[in-house]
Amino acid sequence: MAGSDEEPGAVAAREAGDGTGAAGHPHPLDRIFHPRAIAVVGTPSGDAHGGNFLRSLRATGYDREHALYPVNPRGGVIGGLPAYPSLLDCPGPVDHVISQVPASAVPGLVEQCVEKGVRTLHLFTAGFSETGDPERARAERSAVSRAVSAGIRVIGPNCMGIYVPGERISFTGEPPTEPGNLFLLSQSGVNAADTIFRLGSVGLRFSKVVSYGNGADLTAHDFLDYAASDPQTELVAAYIEGVSDGPAFARALRRCAREKPTVILKGGLTGAGARAANSHTGSLAGSTQVFEALCRQAGALRVESMAELRDVLLTLTTSARRVRGPGVGVLSSGGGFAVLSSDAIARAGLEVPELPQETRRALSQLVPVAGTSVRNPVDASFDGSQGRAEGDPDLLRRAVSEVARASVTDVIFLSTSRVPWLTDSASGAEDERDPYRSARELGEQVAALQRDLEVPLAYIQRERIWGDIGPDLELARTAYSGGVAVYESIERAARSVAQLLAWRARRDGLPDIL
Amino acid sequence: MAGSDEEPGAVAAREAGDGTGAAGHPHPLDRIFHPRAIAVVGTPSGDAHGGNFLRSLRATGYDREHALYPVNPRGGVIGGLPAYPSLLDCPGPVDHVISQVPASAVPGLVEQCVEKGVRTLHLFTAGFSETGDPERARAERSAVSRAVSAGIRVIGPNCMGIYVPGERISFTGEPPTEPGNLFLLSQSGVNAADTIFRLGSVGLRFSKVVSYGNGADLTAHDFLDYAASDPQTELVAAYIEGVSDGPAFARALRRCAREKPTVILKGGLTGAGARAANSHTGSLAGSTQVFEALCRQAGALRVESMAELRDVLLTLTTSARRVRGPGVGVLSSGGGFAVLSSDAIARAGLEVPELPQETRRALSQLVPVAGTSVRNPVDASFDGSQGRAEGDPDLLRRAVSEVARASVTDVIFLSTSRVPWLTDSASGAEDERDPYRSARELGEQVAALQRDLEVPLAYIQRERIWGDIGPDLELARTAYSGGVAVYESIERAARSVAQLLAWRARRDGLPDIL
Repeated sequence: MAGSDEEPGAVAAREAGDGTGAAGHPHPLDRIFHPRAIAVVGTPSGDAHGGNFLRSLRATGYDREHALYPVNPRGGVIGGLPAYPSLLDCPGPVDHVISQVPASAVPGLVEQCVEKGVRTLHLFTAGFSETGDPERARAERSAVSRAVSAGIRVIGPNCMGIYVPGERISFTGEPPTEPGNLFLLSQSGVNAADTIFRLGSVGLRFSKVVSYGNGADLTAHDFLDYAASDPQTELVAAYIEGVSDGPAFARALRRCAREKPTVILKGGLTGAGARAANSHTGSLAGSTQVFEALCRQAGALRVESMAELRDVLLTLTTSARRVRGPGVGVLSSGGGFAVLSSDAIARAGLEVPELPQETRRALSQLVPVAGTSVRNPVDASFDGSQGRAEGDPDLLRRAVSEVARASVTDVIFLSTSRVPWLTDSASGAEDERDPYRSARELGEQVAALQRDLEVPLAYIQRERIWGDIGPDLELARTAYSGGVAVYESIERAARSVAQLLAWRARRDGLPDIL
Repeated sequence: MAGSDEEPGAVAAREAGDGTGAAGHPHPLDRIFHPRAIAVVGTPSGDAHGGNFLRSLRATGYDREHALYPVNPRGGVIGGLPAYPSLLDCPGPVDHVISQVPASAVPGLVEQCVEKGVRTLHLFTAGFSETGDPERARAERSAVSRAVSAGIRVIGPNCMGIYVPGERISFTGEPPTEPGNLFLLSQSGVNAADTIFRLGSVGLRFSKVVSYGNGADLTAHDFLDYAASDPQTELVAAYIEGVSDGPAFARALRRCAREKPTVILKGGLTGAGARAANSHTGSLAGSTQVFEALCRQAGALRVESMAELRDVLLTLTTSARRVRGPGVGVLSSGGGFAVLSSDAIARAGLEVPELPQETRRALSQLVPVAGTSVRNPVDASFDGSQGRAEGDPDLLRRAVSEVARASVTDVIFLSTSRVPWLTDSASGAEDERDPYRSARELGEQVAALQRDLEVPLAYIQRERIWGDIGPDLELARTAYSGGVAVYESIERAARSVAQLLAWRARRDGLPDIL
């Protein structure tokens, strides 16, 4: 491997090893994300929409710019498009084939792909090595090696394939078609779809997403290597169950994590999890110790759940990424919440330092009773004679800026309990205000607070009791568009910030994006 | 203390020390929960409902069975009831006074309480020792000792007071008026109200709830001692920030935990949390080590967050309380979910044991492809040629009963991803079914599964992406009414079951309720 005194760009270019990664030379995998036409082979004819893939590709508008061919032996019209009896009947060239045929029909389809000159075969089809049946594992190897030897790259089997918003390619629902800077690779289709929807609905955007299942041909190291060189991609997240080629994986992870923040969730690190991973994608999982060491050496940020993965991605793409130390200034309302928040922050390895005398003096001017509720946590309810901070943006702004000015403060966690649409449903009072509008206003207020601050600010949501969670999402989205993270609990906020700090402390240098 | 070979009842009766606790002799504190009339002194006249307390007492119907007097110097009619200029003007006897007057008016109110022959003074009024101001701390001591010396018990200051569903007394919103068996004491009013709403909306019911704030007179040990002897109470939960009298607290906790499952959340166990607790309720908090040892010796179950407290209460009041070992049989859909669930269960200290050969053989009859997805976790989606288990109650019932029969299975965690109201909002498809009805049906199905099983079954919810969380609650409520716990995540389910097992393993004997 290259020494650390070299230019990162030079290292990256050389490490790719195959002449790729330098400007003007697209990575060989780049082709698979830009197919000129897609055929969905085995499109179900019984479903009005032609099944999940056809429906999703049409919903995001792929067929408005490219050829999209449903293939079904019965022909006819499926999901509003003319269907062809076989791949070979499709009238134009096909770069990308999505296979929904049964496992037994895959060998025949591979031959058709070879004849048709297909670039990429995405096998949604399952029933191969993940079953544990040696016969089916052999069938997987045989079909995949036939395709690969003919120059066709294979994604899967047993996976959802690719989501490329810039090309209007998607595999589920109606995800954003606006491209972004996050590359996600996942052995699980559900985890991929879930992340697209959850982060997408907050406002995060993706360069590409790949669900690659059993990874019989293209696998983690291929996608990490691609992500490292992809100019659209500025950060990378991965859900991995198994690593087929340890050294190649270590190399690709190192290259990727050196240039771009790379967040890894490894499933199957416990005995039971490893058995499940073997059942799911035929993966042979390693130990926690080995994987942890690998991530440390590579400079990747390892997380332990999908929620943590999402939280860290929020942290990395908002003002919270600028946090420089463990000191949290807490502004919240509700004494019990303040106590338990302090405990939770301390347990996560951060601090809730006592605010200096001068800050407390300044804050005392803003609260009705001189006392200890200005020491940190600061009582941001201010619901005495001077009114409520949440109802008085100026009072809250002044309190936040005092806390931010203190030298002990590295990040501010703000949490107001008197969120209108929460409070009133709990207390039984009628609220005549539009809860979506209230949420948007709070989100805008939070974003405006951040604009005046040097230190990062994050907003902490309270747990919802009942009702529509739409306003919570509206708040998160509005704040995020202003560069502020909204976390679902104080525990999760503290954990995510602590993970970022620990990861940064372990690294020599940081990717450019930070 | 009494030896462990004595009759629990005899021990309890003697330990109460004041001749209480035996049948027929109500505990001296019992009076405070059964006031014959309540006056709300300092009822705001500007609010149409007379403020939170008057509104809540009327909403739960206290005034339909008892006298309820708003007291405000202006008199008139407040919240639909005639208001009196002072406590002394109330036409009948008053047992319970809720004080909403400012701190400076409390000494005068105490004198009126003495003259009126009041039993209990609940000081919602704040601005005393919790401010850290020595003058205000002195004022608290002075007012409280004057009241106590005249035979009046004081709840607070700085608290929400009592919720007694059987007496239609409440302090917030419209909580259930149906009484139950859980006694909750909390130094935080928000934590108390939150627990009432969250657990109440699932179906858990309370004997009494006390929010006692600074605890200047009545405090944790008084309420624990009462809860131990209260025949309505079968389990006890406490949120505590500070302990004023260590030996008395240890005695009361031991007595209570010996007879009834007692769950304790101690806020302020970290340095930052202790400072916050001091600001909130003037409490001086101790160390984690000391408190942990105290709970162990007493046989109490210590938790670290309000979410854990609620989860453990769910566990203790559903079939999950019967769990006898660490072996979890997992039936779920989604391979990635199975992998990460297995890891999470193992990290919580439980096990996901491989199912024996005969169980796997039986399960193989129910799934389309013979393979490893029947080893545990078991793939409960069955979405191959034989249809979906969630859509086929009989297939799911057979699979669950096979897993339950295996000797390695101590508890079953069931999680189906194809919950109609979840799946369809994510995939963008229209669902014509009523999501509340679907939720209810799933809850009933889960409860019906439990009826046929020896081992406990718990249902694990998937995280909601958007929309109304009403159906989630409907599922939880329906399952709970059938004795089955619904947890919000696999991590929380595993942690709660592990906490129960660890707590039980530490105890010599178990309370009768278990």
